[in-house]
Amino acid sequence: MKLLVALLVILALGALVGFGSSVKTRSGTDEQAIRALYARYSVDAEARNLDAIMSYYAPGKTLVAFDAYPPRRYVGVAAYRKSYAGFFVAYPGPLTSKVSDLHVSAAGSFAYAFGVDRWVATAKNGQKQTAVFRFTDVLRKTGGKWLIVHEHLSFPVDPVTGRADFLSKP
Amino acid sequence: MKLLVALLVILALGALVGFGSSVKTRSGTDEQAIRALYARYSVDAEARNLDAIMSYYAPGKTLVAFDAYPPRRYVGVAAYRKSYAGFFVAYPGPLTSKVSDLHVSAAGSFAYAFGVDRWVATAKNGQKQTAVFRFTDVLRKTGGKWLIVHEHLSFPVDPVTGRADFLSKP
Repeated sequence: MKLLVALLVILALGALVGFGSSVKTRSGTDEQAIRALYARYSVDAEARNLDAIMSYYAPGKTLVAFDAYPPRRYVGVAAYRKSYAGFFVAYPGPLTSKVSDLHVSAAGSFAYAFGVDRWVATAKNGQKQTAVFRFTDVLRKTGGKWLIVHEHLSFPVDPVTGRADFLSKP
Repeated sequence: MKLLVALLVILALGALVGFGSSVKTRSGTDEQAIRALYARYSVDAEARNLDAIMSYYAPGKTLVAFDAYPPRRYVGVAAYRKSYAGFFVAYPGPLTSKVSDLHVSAAGSFAYAFGVDRWVATAKNGQKQTAVFRFTDVLRKTGGKWLIVHEHLSFPVDPVTGRADFLSKP
């Protein structure tokens, strides 16, 4: 019986130590993986690579996105892809994307991230336009890969004039 | 040795069953608790109960909020409280809050929620104004209580006119 108790204690300690270290390591790796996702996202946006951009979002009807522009929301990655495609048509020239103030937290198969993404896009007439988006993403890990299941993009809006501040300051 | 193997199998099965059912039950309860939070939030908003409203947010400097109105972001619950207080001063009359399209997902001590909140507020001149907010919240469970650690509120904005759609349709 003593042997059994000792064995259970060893098993319990092993589980605790193993769980603790594995969670720490996984969480660190997860945060790095998600930060890498945003680094790649900017590269893919600048390359106007629609397939690469959409690969960061959950497939099918899972994604619900509140875009900075109307409509109120998109359900499913196919609908949201049209929003990106429309943007690339309206702004066919050079584009830069710079993410800053990025916060990432991951726990188990859930994560969230928020920050600011400064886009400088070039309209059809060659004019450069800057838009500083605030973004919030919720991500789920599926088959070892992090995918965005919910996204919220926006600009702050003046309550009196109803006008957006496209260049909001921190 | 056979006894030991049998014991380990029983322990493993027990852990699996126990873990599975406890996660299910906890997750169901968690989702209900978070839905109840939004129901209470609307009641407290209509009662203009600032202390009650702020009790849903994480204390100290944890909260980061992207409000629908400038500035770009608030860090900490004390700063965010000023935003609510300013709103109540600007709209001193009767107020209604109606949350719809509420999605809630909880896993472990982490949850997120998003939806639409339709506010009808009464300005100083007695005029009623409607604002349909899109909201995204990230919540963490601390000491058995769910608290909002990140919030994002917004209206969709017309990219050409720069004007917000305060009454966006689904």
